[in-house]
Amino acid sequence: MSGTSLDGIDVAVVEIARGRIQPLIFKTTPYPNAVREALLSVSNGMTHTAVIARLHFLLGELYADAIRATCHRRVPLKSIDLIGMHGQTIFHEGAPIEYLGHRIASTFQIGDPAIVAERTGIRTISNFRERDIAAGGRGAPLVPYVDQLLFRHRTKTRVALNIGGIANISVVHPLTQAKKPTIAFDTGPGNMVIDALVRRMTDGKAAFDRAGDIARAAQVHSKMLDGMLRDPYFKLAPPKTAGREQFGQDFAAGLIATGVPLEDLIATATEFTVRSIAVAIATHAPPESEVIASGGGIHNTHLMQRLRALLPAVSLTTSADFGIDPDAKEAIAFAALAHEFVQHRPANLPSATGARRAVLLGRDTPA
Amino acid sequence: MSGTSLDGIDVAVVEIARGRIQPLIFKTTPYPNAVREALLSVSNGMTHTAVIARLHFLLGELYADAIRATCHRRVPLKSIDLIGMHGQTIFHEGAPIEYLGHRIASTFQIGDPAIVAERTGIRTISNFRERDIAAGGRGAPLVPYVDQLLFRHRTKTRVALNIGGIANISVVHPLTQAKKPTIAFDTGPGNMVIDALVRRMTDGKAAFDRAGDIARAAQVHSKMLDGMLRDPYFKLAPPKTAGREQFGQDFAAGLIATGVPLEDLIATATEFTVRSIAVAIATHAPPESEVIASGGGIHNTHLMQRLRALLPAVSLTTSADFGIDPDAKEAIAFAALAHEFVQHRPANLPSATGARRAVLLGRDTPA
Repeated sequence: MSGTSLDGIDVAVVEIARGRIQPLIFKTTPYPNAVREALLSVSNGMTHTAVIARLHFLLGELYADAIRATCHRRVPLKSIDLIGMHGQTIFHEGAPIEYLGHRIASTFQIGDPAIVAERTGIRTISNFRERDIAAGGRGAPLVPYVDQLLFRHRTKTRVALNIGGIANISVVHPLTQAKKPTIAFDTGPGNMVIDALVRRMTDGKAAFDRAGDIARAAQVHSKMLDGMLRDPYFKLAPPKTAGREQFGQDFAAGLIATGVPLEDLIATATEFTVRSIAVAIATHAPPESEVIASGGGIHNTHLMQRLRALLPAVSLTTSADFGIDPDAKEAIAFAALAHEFVQHRPANLPSATGARRAVLLGRDTPA
Repeated sequence: MSGTSLDGIDVAVVEIARGRIQPLIFKTTPYPNAVREALLSVSNGMTHTAVIARLHFLLGELYADAIRATCHRRVPLKSIDLIGMHGQTIFHEGAPIEYLGHRIASTFQIGDPAIVAERTGIRTISNFRERDIAAGGRGAPLVPYVDQLLFRHRTKTRVALNIGGIANISVVHPLTQAKKPTIAFDTGPGNMVIDALVRRMTDGKAAFDRAGDIARAAQVHSKMLDGMLRDPYFKLAPPKTAGREQFGQDFAAGLIATGVPLEDLIATATEFTVRSIAVAIATHAPPESEVIASGGGIHNTHLMQRLRALLPAVSLTTSADFGIDPDAKEAIAFAALAHEFVQHRPANLPSATGARRAVLLGRDTPA
């Protein structure tokens, strides 16, 4: 898995047997700087077709290298049945637009699975998002299906909460109500607004509010907060997706322009994230649900404390309590999705992506 | 199959049983003009990543439409087991270059197989060229493998000759020598130089020398011809590929600059094509081989007569004599290659592509 943050290549080695997903190893290999810059230049921008083609094959090589390095001396490559390769998204437009007379949604991941399969000798499943779009979905989110596999409880409702740049939840109903579709959507901002404000306040020296110390010591401006929470996004029914453009740099710039001290803006933005998450959970899950958090936001203890305060009946844990390294969850998810593909099990959740039907996600490159 | 000429979408319906390839239907659906223009703009040029992503999904829709239109009232879609989808090449660089510290060859076909599989309900095999490149090959040519399947004779050597813009041959040894690798390579120019000269001579009113009438009535300049045939390309040992840049517009412009009358240039260019093909066949196949021609060049009767004159012992036929519409051959080839993939048979010829080994070509999208 390679995220849109362009950090690098996350490799998770996972054992799946009798429906149980057991993470074994996790390792992140950073992209070389020149590769990150090339990816930045092609992601949603003008480029030469040659650059995309070359990067497609180069990423195949880097992915194969990362897989070998992760397994080296720990797991023999020969013992691995399957690779689930998400690839690097360089464009995603889940909502259809009018294009040359057709309604077209699209998604574009690069990283050549033929290179990965040839270098590793391992069957490789790739292109997970395309079929969901073909079936009328937005091609995302795909992780909620895996949240079901990982977290479904016999009697309790569980909510998988990921606090990345954007925050999202999957409401996984108990086995006794397994027919009820999993609700999954972006709740709104995660760390993105907070991080942008911290970078501004520290002239780029800090990238995030460590443990929430800045927010904890400052003042929430409640009128400003109320205004933020009136954003029509929060009234939309799921499934829905929030974008980088919605709660990103521009949003932070608007806050800064008010002249309110940056500490207070950070406190207010943190409370904004907390409140939008809490409302989403309170609306879509029973009060005594178990909330399992992952993503960078879990290290913001102030944010986590505020969430606990707003959702007093909820039990709030992190995925680490379930043996899932919060940073590894997405990579683990694509191993699980590859497994579902070879088991011929449709793995998109129409309730989460908006697809007309559940379909087999993936494309198969033989060993 | 969609060729680099960007004409449109060739659909061949083929029955394959007990090793026999039986073409049933062939239909070309032209690309809408706006799509052709968009493809031209992204093919080997600067573009926005969004355009490639959207075209990828749009072509999926157009391919599915073309398949349905071809089968309509003739073959029920439900009776079709498999689609072999070449896609539209928008970049190909079979020889590796130095790229960000790696040796990278690449190829790039668009047209989303997930859309095709979802719309038709038919299992779709795509991405044929990538695995050959992963195995160190140039990703082309892939048709010679199918020439073997179509044309291999018990005792006779057969040469599949395609005269398109560029001309190429596959030398298919008899069954009695089936261990001898098929030799396949571009012999040099096909119609490309001739066509460029005709367009110039007629101010674009004619696109080719119909039946070779211009060449037949004009004078070959033998000194000029000798110079052309000294091109180092003809000394290279196969496998080798000739490009549009090598025997295209620029080459024709150089000829025009000599001031020789255009008719004579057309006669000389035609003889150049004939001689380079004849030398290639004489060098790599026995004198009494059977040569099976396809491609637009077969309609140039002067060219075909000259070939017969230079290869007197050869029997020169066209693929139509074997039940293969010369225009349909490539589309038929990708149906056959899809069949080979699902039969788990490696279908690249290392002798033709330069790959280190024979590999399974394709990526599998389930129905």
